[in-house]
Amino acid sequence: MQHSSRGSKPLRTLRFTATTKRQVADTVAEEEPLEIQLIHQGRTHPVAITMRTPGRDLDLAIGFLFTEGLLPPGHRVGGGGAQVQTNKVSLPWPEHLPLSLRRIERHSYTSSSCGVCGKTSLEMVYSTVPFAQVPATWSVPAEVLPTLPDRLRAAQELFATTGGIHAAGLFDRSGVLLQHAEDVGRHNAVDKLIGHYYTMNFLPLHEYILVLSGRASFELLQKAAMAGIPFVASVGAPSSLAVELAEDQGITLCGFVRAGGFNCYTHPERIT
Amino acid sequence: MQHSSRGSKPLRTLRFTATTKRQVADTVAEEEPLEIQLIHQGRTHPVAITMRTPGRDLDLAIGFLFTEGLLPPGHRVGGGGAQVQTNKVSLPWPEHLPLSLRRIERHSYTSSSCGVCGKTSLEMVYSTVPFAQVPATWSVPAEVLPTLPDRLRAAQELFATTGGIHAAGLFDRSGVLLQHAEDVGRHNAVDKLIGHYYTMNFLPLHEYILVLSGRASFELLQKAAMAGIPFVASVGAPSSLAVELAEDQGITLCGFVRAGGFNCYTHPERIT
Repeated sequence: MQHSSRGSKPLRTLRFTATTKRQVADTVAEEEPLEIQLIHQGRTHPVAITMRTPGRDLDLAIGFLFTEGLLPPGHRVGGGGAQVQTNKVSLPWPEHLPLSLRRIERHSYTSSSCGVCGKTSLEMVYSTVPFAQVPATWSVPAEVLPTLPDRLRAAQELFATTGGIHAAGLFDRSGVLLQHAEDVGRHNAVDKLIGHYYTMNFLPLHEYILVLSGRASFELLQKAAMAGIPFVASVGAPSSLAVELAEDQGITLCGFVRAGGFNCYTHPERIT
Repeated sequence: MQHSSRGSKPLRTLRFTATTKRQVADTVAEEEPLEIQLIHQGRTHPVAITMRTPGRDLDLAIGFLFTEGLLPPGHRVGGGGAQVQTNKVSLPWPEHLPLSLRRIERHSYTSSSCGVCGKTSLEMVYSTVPFAQVPATWSVPAEVLPTLPDRLRAAQELFATTGGIHAAGLFDRSGVLLQHAEDVGRHNAVDKLIGHYYTMNFLPLHEYILVLSGRASFELLQKAAMAGIPFVASVGAPSSLAVELAEDQGITLCGFVRAGGFNCYTHPERIT
């Protein structure tokens, strides 16, 4: 397969229909592992390997470290010392910040910073969230929400060619798309997006709506909570634990957001 | 939220359409963490925590240990000594089998047994696959394939009520569904399915077709390769690394398998 720098790879495929079979040129979403390392006092500490679509690797690494509770907000880690190689990002740990190797080891075991039962998971998330919850000081007209997934898809370069990639988009309350990211992994798309705003020192994202192209799982709601996002709208269904986390963290969670309407599972006070 | 024993949870949701807004009874897919532990010489070793839909936890744990290369085929681990609790499965390690703690630690770091670059990942998978590749000694009529996803969906109890859960199904070459599993995580659905056949000592699955309700990622192809499955058909798109692994491992990989037709990415010799 030929490499493409845009997160997709061209190939030839056999297209079967009811009556025909022919060779066609096709494109698939690129998937490669990314290793994330921290450099602290001259030593390199491996943190995680994630299967991701190449591109915006520095955003992904920083977003991952922040949303997984390993890196507190407000630090500069993507500066001069950061090394971005093919399939590897090495970040210098901020000098004055203590590095908890135990926390990293524990994280690498649990994979998504969750405990042994749902309640433990939720409590662990709550203790890690760096920003205070915000009351519903703003709202979105109900008719705006069903338009957001189409706007996100229109911005997706890779979906158009591969038909198989997730997206996360940050919208303002009038429905304007500010930033989006694409990845074969839903969680990576969210980390790329949040990593971008971490680097800009623009967290918390209290004024914005996160739109997800797929389903809303616990892990994605956890990442939204970490970034202070009070409104999540997904094209797919939410899971039970995603609904619980949203309820407890004051997040408005809508699912099945499509042209005909949507479901609101928690905190509908942000919808007018 | 009320608990249901079938992998879904009832709740009330606000349904918005263009002109209406009303409270409706709804159901979401259950998502809870499962901790997988091994017991060896009286000591308990935590292996992983995965976010999964409760149900068939023993199949999931055994399938996970096998497809991740931690447990060789042909052993009895789900017998009398296994403890299945809410959100935790503890499995006694076979007495005569050496337990590599380093391998478990390494696994918990990499999360999906992949190396630092795509090639390394692939080579690592190849060295772990316990069964020899099989030549294409059988084939499937092209018109059978587009019917399989509908048959899988018809068998999905949880999708019907939640609209948000993945499935993996094992079909024979005439299109009969033998077994299926559902989960909020695609990889868990495959592990539940393969764990079932591991326990029955029915591996390798050289004669069968794995049908996936979503996209085909590297991780899912890796699990198929471990179980000796030579044919994978997914409703969604494949990733680049999934195509590479299928090509190298002699697996027929079809994607976008839907009513109108499908694409075949590798080894079309198993399609007539």
